[in-house]
Amino acid sequence: MTEDLISIIDVLKYFRAIHIMAMLLLGFGFLMVFVKKYGRSAITATYLLVSVAVPLYFLKDSQGLLGGVDSDIDRLILAEFAAASLLICAGAVLGRLKMAQYMLLGLLFVPFYALNEWILLDGGLGLVEHGRFVDTGGSVVIHAFGALFGLGVAASMTTRKEYETPIEADATSDRFSLLGSMVLWVFWPSFCGALVAPADIPMTIVNVILALCGSTIATYAASLKLRGKVCVADIANAALAGGVAIGSTCDKVSPLIAFAIGILAGALSTFGFAVIQNRFQNSIKKIDTCGVLHLHGLPGLFGGLIAMLTVNGISHGDQIKGILITIVIAIVSGLFAGKILSLTGRRTEPYTDSEELIVD
Amino acid sequence: MTEDLISIIDVLKYFRAIHIMAMLLLGFGFLMVFVKKYGRSAITATYLLVSVAVPLYFLKDSQGLLGGVDSDIDRLILAEFAAASLLICAGAVLGRLKMAQYMLLGLLFVPFYALNEWILLDGGLGLVEHGRFVDTGGSVVIHAFGALFGLGVAASMTTRKEYETPIEADATSDRFSLLGSMVLWVFWPSFCGALVAPADIPMTIVNVILALCGSTIATYAASLKLRGKVCVADIANAALAGGVAIGSTCDKVSPLIAFAIGILAGALSTFGFAVIQNRFQNSIKKIDTCGVLHLHGLPGLFGGLIAMLTVNGISHGDQIKGILITIVIAIVSGLFAGKILSLTGRRTEPYTDSEELIVD
Amino acid sequence: MTEDLISIIDVLKYFRAIHIMAMLLLGFGFLMVFVKKYGRSAITATYLLVSVAVPLYFLKDSQGLLGGVDSDIDRLILAEFAAASLLICAGAVLGRLKMAQYMLLGLLFVPFYALNEWILLDGGLGLVEHGRFVDTGGSVVIHAFGALFGLGVAASMTTRKEYETPIEADATSDRFSLLGSMVLWVFWPSFCGALVAPADIPMTIVNVILALCGSTIATYAASLKLRGKVCVADIANAALAGGVAIGSTCDKVSPLIAFAIGILAGALSTFGFAVIQNRFQNSIKKIDTCGVLHLHGLPGLFGGLIAMLTVNGISHGDQIKGILITIVIAIVSGLFAGKILSLTGRRTEPYTDSEELIVD
Repeated sequence: MTEDLISIIDVLKYFRAIHIMAMLLLGFGFLMVFVKKYGRSAITATYLLVSVAVPLYFLKDSQGLLGGVDSDIDRLILAEFAAASLLICAGAVLGRLKMAQYMLLGLLFVPFYALNEWILLDGGLGLVEHGRFVDTGGSVVIHAFGALFGLGVAASMTTRKEYETPIEADATSDRFSLLGSMVLWVFWPSFCGALVAPADIPMTIVNVILALCGSTIATYAASLKLRGKVCVADIANAALAGGVAIGSTCDKVSPLIAFAIGILAGALSTFGFAVIQNRFQNSIKKIDTCGVLHLHGLPGLFGGLIAMLTVNGISHGDQIKGILITIVIAIVSGLFAGKILSLTGRRTEPYTDSEELIVD
Repeated sequence: MTEDLISIIDVLKYFRAIHIMAMLLLGFGFLMVFVKKYGRSAITATYLLVSVAVPLYFLKDSQGLLGGVDSDIDRLILAEFAAASLLICAGAVLGRLKMAQYMLLGLLFVPFYALNEWILLDGGLGLVEHGRFVDTGGSVVIHAFGALFGLGVAASMTTRKEYETPIEADATSDRFSLLGSMVLWVFWPSFCGALVAPADIPMTIVNVILALCGSTIATYAASLKLRGKVCVADIANAALAGGVAIGSTCDKVSPLIAFAIGILAGALSTFGFAVIQNRFQNSIKKIDTCGVLHLHGLPGLFGGLIAMLTVNGISHGDQIKGILITIVIAIVSGLFAGKILSLTGRRTEPYTDSEELIVD
Repeated sequence: MTEDLISIIDVLKYFRAIHIMAMLLLGFGFLMVFVKKYGRSAITATYLLVSVAVPLYFLKDSQGLLGGVDSDIDRLILAEFAAASLLICAGAVLGRLKMAQYMLLGLLFVPFYALNEWILLDGGLGLVEHGRFVDTGGSVVIHAFGALFGLGVAASMTTRKEYETPIEADATSDRFSLLGSMVLWVFWPSFCGALVAPADIPMTIVNVILALCGSTIATYAASLKLRGKVCVADIANAALAGGVAIGSTCDKVSPLIAFAIGILAGALSTFGFAVIQNRFQNSIKKIDTCGVLHLHGLPGLFGGLIAMLTVNGISHGDQIKGILITIVIAIVSGLFAGKILSLTGRRTEPYTDSEELIVD
């Protein structure tokens, strides 16, 4: 290929990188605005988390620690993936940390994230052979890891009292949250296809869009069935589960399989929000503010596992090994990060905008 | 052309496809949030309409029914066009259907849309010779068709009582609506240029942007003139009329003509909202919730007709034939769909969020 | 290069042009929605300012006045730059003009903007040799010029009484403003890299993103330090100062330098909002509604000046000459425009939505 073509293909990646940035800030940021009294803080936290994670991962990578790539654009996209996983993690403890603690969380999170990514995708420590673990769009490495790490943190940083304080939303916070949800939905194909070669882009993005259509319809049906009426938070969140679950196999399955994966993921995620969430929180008396277990954790693991049924020639052993490694590293390092964070102060009631922000 | 170049051109189309997806969800979705008590429902309905239409059209097309293309990306873009037309149609009856009925509307709409598209653009049934009907950006096939179909549905699904219930907006619903409007404005060039060859993209998108500038200025002036003060809904809607009307000829006229088409379309659309809307609704006692006749119907037909004055070598006979066929198919099939929908239940008062959604 | 490649590179520019359009409408527009009682007017004004500036610059350029380029896409991007600078200028007097006056402001602004651009970048009048003034992303030509012109206008168009009327925001206007801020943040790399050659895009956009991360973190720290609590308006505005300041050198410095420039710019801008703003307004009894001096003026000048320290082989003489010319033309022509505008009427109290818009 000529140098001109190589430059052009880099610019095409750059546009996908910008789409991912839209997801990180506008998508994750506004999805988290559903907490009525904490909307401006959620957005501020999003800004800070991204601004800590991207330079930190970029620095790590350019120093060649735990792997590392040569291309500026690839490095940027990998840094954005790390930031996405961090935002998922932060969703579990949204409203339970101070701004400075979110930044500390970023500093603690990125190294463990990079370690897990290195082991699963780069053959780090020789645990999983390079290229054997199937996870193109990060169902496991990004989504499940972030969610499980976040639950680890929540184990230290949330309390029974917080569990008993209901999270309030209103018509305006709901609409902002749906706005964030739609930004994520729209740009999800660029997330999954960020590092895919041009020739495989069409198939990849069609699969992602069909998976999202499937989870959106399934979410509506499951929410109505399980709750009697449709819950706005289900729509805003579980509609995206198809994107989470198709990640692992987005460039490898047929459109019909993608649609089916989306339907299953949407139903699973809605079941999580509508049924598991309360029981889970009841039993452990901890809070997962944004329900990241149900949007990213379970659908992410489902996406990694379903690859074993839908992708020809996959190594079942490596796939399962990768998933188990992710679960262990995420939970252990999440618990560790939670302990460290709790040393810098913890509260028994959720924060509101007025505590750290000047509110008119 | 080499395979590399072909792949790259596909990725360029993919980015336009993502822009169109932003228009469908964030654009149409939030534009419809102007109904204060129905905002979350409007967004949920948008999610469902897109998630039904895209897979359905995709399936039809991959089966080769009523034409069909080979490329995944072209098929995706055509499916998005179908979804856009469906959203326009749904705008006419926004708040008059239950969620399940929106989905049924999608199932009824897509086949007729595909039939009309096939006849006008693919030489289906031998009525219009392939390639003779000029409508690059879909002024007629997408906008006018969707609006007229929607009016057909509204004829069955709205009542005098609904007509008498004013639609309430407030400062927040207005701002969300303007947000949706701006998303549509920004990405409109990608909509019109979605299937245009790279060499014609610059001219196409300059024309679309100039047409939108023209309609925006004309909307302000006409709204002020006709109403004494400027109406926010005029700005949110009629400012986009230039995009609707330039569709047919976006890759064929000069920038100055494009600007002029935009001015005329903005004035026409504002006249529709400010003057025709009340008289029309008064006379037939039906509601067109979003005023799709004035944003998509009239400017779309105007765009198709003005092509006869501005495009050299156009076949006037085929252009008029195509427009008439669209009008007939849209209205007849819209009336038919309305009858079917009314069998599944109809109401005499508009829905609010609290009826189908769990509202805090 | 083949014609195919040239077309493709044009399409790549087109996508950046669309990103810039998102910044102009959704970004600047919603950032200015922080004024609670003037949100819909701010968005309407944004629509009108863009719709006046883009065709006007396009016309000027296609006529070859004050320079002018051959390519439609380059011309569009330059027209968008002019519109960006105009929006910055309008931010200084937001809420002090009637809609028709914003449009008149556009007509007055664009010629002076084009004059300054021509002198600095095209060798106009022989004052600065072509290609010697370093300002790739427009720190000086776009940001500082717009801000200083706006202050010139404000000198005529704001009064002591307005100065004494506090600008009210609330939770919803804040969230809309943060939304606009994030749109600007996300697409800023496309703004700075709009006219950069494909091979230099990766480095450019990494620098812009790192600069924005730097200013975001610095803004948080400085706001907390200077005010005791974090001010939402600081986050929404000063977080972007890294993008403003990196403009001049975005394709020329290392990532670490970019990050450092961002940190300094964020601190400087926050200092402006938190400390200088009140003193400045106190001393001259004029209002700079959006604080454009602190977001665009000072960081823009800082960006132009820092180029002298960070770019090898730069001509210090030309760089300083260019900055001084910009300051003089912007302020003098801004004062002139303010005088003209004040002939068409001025008020002593800020406008609210209800005066020019039909408000439900």
